[in-house]
Amino acid sequence: MPTTSATTRIHNFSAGPAVLPLPVLEEAQRELLALPGVGMSVMEISHRSKTFEDILSRAVEDIRALAHVPDSYKVLMLQGGASLQFSMVPMNLLGPGAAADYVDTGSWADKAIKEARKVGTVNLAGSTKAEKYSRIPAERELTLTPGAAYVHITTNNTIEGTQWTALPEVGGVPLVADASSDIFHAPLDVSRFGLIYAGAQKNLGPSGVTLVIVREDLLARSTDVLPVMMNYRVHAENNSLYNTPNTFGIYILGLTMKWLRSQGGLPAMARVNQRKAAKLYAEIDRTGFYRGTAQPESRSLMNVTFRLATEELEKLFVKESTAAGLDGLKGHRSVGGMRASIYNAFPEEGVDALVDFMREFERKHG
Amino acid sequence: MPTTSATTRIHNFSAGPAVLPLPVLEEAQRELLALPGVGMSVMEISHRSKTFEDILSRAVEDIRALAHVPDSYKVLMLQGGASLQFSMVPMNLLGPGAAADYVDTGSWADKAIKEARKVGTVNLAGSTKAEKYSRIPAERELTLTPGAAYVHITTNNTIEGTQWTALPEVGGVPLVADASSDIFHAPLDVSRFGLIYAGAQKNLGPSGVTLVIVREDLLARSTDVLPVMMNYRVHAENNSLYNTPNTFGIYILGLTMKWLRSQGGLPAMARVNQRKAAKLYAEIDRTGFYRGTAQPESRSLMNVTFRLATEELEKLFVKESTAAGLDGLKGHRSVGGMRASIYNAFPEEGVDALVDFMREFERKHG
Repeated sequence: MPTTSATTRIHNFSAGPAVLPLPVLEEAQRELLALPGVGMSVMEISHRSKTFEDILSRAVEDIRALAHVPDSYKVLMLQGGASLQFSMVPMNLLGPGAAADYVDTGSWADKAIKEARKVGTVNLAGSTKAEKYSRIPAERELTLTPGAAYVHITTNNTIEGTQWTALPEVGGVPLVADASSDIFHAPLDVSRFGLIYAGAQKNLGPSGVTLVIVREDLLARSTDVLPVMMNYRVHAENNSLYNTPNTFGIYILGLTMKWLRSQGGLPAMARVNQRKAAKLYAEIDRTGFYRGTAQPESRSLMNVTFRLATEELEKLFVKESTAAGLDGLKGHRSVGGMRASIYNAFPEEGVDALVDFMREFERKHG
Repeated sequence: MPTTSATTRIHNFSAGPAVLPLPVLEEAQRELLALPGVGMSVMEISHRSKTFEDILSRAVEDIRALAHVPDSYKVLMLQGGASLQFSMVPMNLLGPGAAADYVDTGSWADKAIKEARKVGTVNLAGSTKAEKYSRIPAERELTLTPGAAYVHITTNNTIEGTQWTALPEVGGVPLVADASSDIFHAPLDVSRFGLIYAGAQKNLGPSGVTLVIVREDLLARSTDVLPVMMNYRVHAENNSLYNTPNTFGIYILGLTMKWLRSQGGLPAMARVNQRKAAKLYAEIDRTGFYRGTAQPESRSLMNVTFRLATEELEKLFVKESTAAGLDGLKGHRSVGGMRASIYNAFPEEGVDALVDFMREFERKHG
C-alpha cells in the first residue's frame, strides 16, 4: 500500500480531535519506526529514558516560552481530558467549608458545575443558559462570592461558539479556566489565573493529553487523602512522570509547540486567527442568508457557529460541503446548525475555500 | 531528513512502554498523514466519526475474539493507566461497610493496596514482601475473607519478575486483576474474573490507553456520586466514548490486536513466549554466573530478572549490552540487577541475541 501524502488531505473543520499542522504529521511520519539515533519508535521508549525526558522537558519549555509562563507556575501533562479536570479542580482546590464560583456559559461549563457539586459548594456566579448560551455575561452581571475558593470560567464555548474577550476581575480569588478550545490562540496572561487546563485535542495536539498550568501556591491545597492520580501536587513533584504518561501524545504536542514557535508564536497566531474568523463572520453577515448564533460581541475566533433558514437547507449544506472536501461542518448534535472549527493549525486557505463554498451555496439555494 | 526504516531499529527490552510489532508501526507510518479514503490523519478525526467508531469497535471485537470474552462482560478503553485503576476499582466496587482482599506480590500490588486503603477496608490476604517478593504465595497461604467485595491480584509483577501460574480459587467473590504486564501473553479464562485491567504499554499498544474488561453485573455497584470519569458504568453505557478517548492510542492498540490474531492468537503467543523465556532461564541457570531473582516456580514469562556477582559487573553488563544494541536491560531502580522484558511483540531473535551476548559476557568476565 502506498504511503499517504499531503495531497490526499482534505479540509478538516472538526471541533476536536482536530486538524494538526502538516509539518508535525510529516516529522512524526518520518520518525515513526525509529527516532533518529535511538533505534526505537517514540511509542516504544521508556518514559524514564533520557530521550523521553528530553521530549517532555522541551515541550514544557516551549509552552513556557510561548505563553511567558511565570516561574511560580507548574506545567503538567496529564490524562483524562477536561472531563477529568472537572473533578480534579474541586477535589484539589475546594476545601471543606469553602465554596467556589462557577460561570455557566455553555454545555461544558454546565458539566464542570455538575462535577464540582459532587465535591462541595458551588455558587452560580452567572449564567446565560436562558439565552441558549448565545453570549458571555458582562462583568456587571456576575455575582462573585468574597473569599471563594476559586472562580471557574470556560474561556471558549466549543459548542455554542462564544468566547470571553476580556477576563473577569476576580480580585485575590484564583481564576480557574477550562481553556480547552482556545488555549494559545492568542497571547495569554498566565499571571491572571490560578489554574488553566486544556484537553490537547483542539489547539495543542492529539487527544489523550491534558495540559494543566497551575500556580505553585495552590498545590498546598492538595491533600494526601486524594486518589494519588487525582493529586496535582503529586504530578507536580514528579514532573508529570508519577506514572506512565501518554508518551506519544506528549511527543506530538511538543512538535506542535515547536511549530507554533516557528510560526511566530502567539502574537502571530492571534493575527491569523483574527483574519480567519473575520472572513467567516463577514460572509455570515453579508446578506442574511446565513445567521450567526452567537451574539456579535461574544463571537468565538475558534468555533464559528451559524444556521440557515431551514433544517433541510442545513442538511443540504452539510452534504454538499462534505462532498466538496470541507469536512466536519455539522454543528454539535445538541444545538444543530453548522460549526466551523478553525483552530491554530487550520490553514487560512481552508477558510477561503469555505467562504467560496458558502457564496456558491447561497447562489444556488438562496 | 530521510524516513527512518526497520533496519535502523535495535533490540528493545524495555519494561513499558515497550517494543511494538514492526508491521503495526509500518502500517501506522504509511497512514499517518491521511487514513486511506478519509483524507485526514487518525489523530485528526472526530471520536464521534464513523471512521473512528469503526476503529474502536474493531479493536473491541478483536479483543473479544482473542480472549473469548463472554457476552456478559464489557470491554472498555480508558485513560490514566493502571495507576488510576488502583483508585477506580475500590471507588466503584468497594461499597460502604464492605472489605476487599488484596494479595501483595510486588511494588505495584503495594501501590494498589495504598490507594484502596484511602477508599475503604482492605484485608491483606497474602504477602511475600518479607521474601523481597521473590515468589507468588501458594493458595494455602492466602487468607481470604468470606463475603469480600472482591479479591485483587497482580497477575505479573513487572519489577520483581514473578507471575501467577494458576489463579487462586476465590469462590463466588469477584477476582480483580491488574494484568498490565502479562495480559494476552497466553489464553485467558475471562470468566474467572470480575474485572481485569491493564495499562496498554506493555502487551497491548502504546501508553495512554487502559483496557478494562468488567463483568456487567458489577457495574451496578458504580454510584452516581462518583466523579463521572471514574464511573465504570458511565464508560460502559457510552461504549468508552463518554468523553474524548486517546484516539491514536486506541488505533495502535487495534492494529496490535489485528497483528496478534494474524500470528495465531493467544495459543500461538503462549508457545512463543514459553520458548523465549525458557531460552533465557536456561542460560541464567547454566553455570551460576547469572542468578535469577525469582523463585523458579514463580518465574515470569514476561520479565526475566537476574543478577550478577557484583554491582560493578552488573554496570558493565548494562554498558556492554547497550553498546551491542540490546537496550533497556537495566533492572528497575528499586531492585537493581538486570531485567529482560520480552512481551508478545518482542522478537525471538532478540532473545537469541541476548543469550549470545550473555555467553560472550561470561566468557570475557566469568
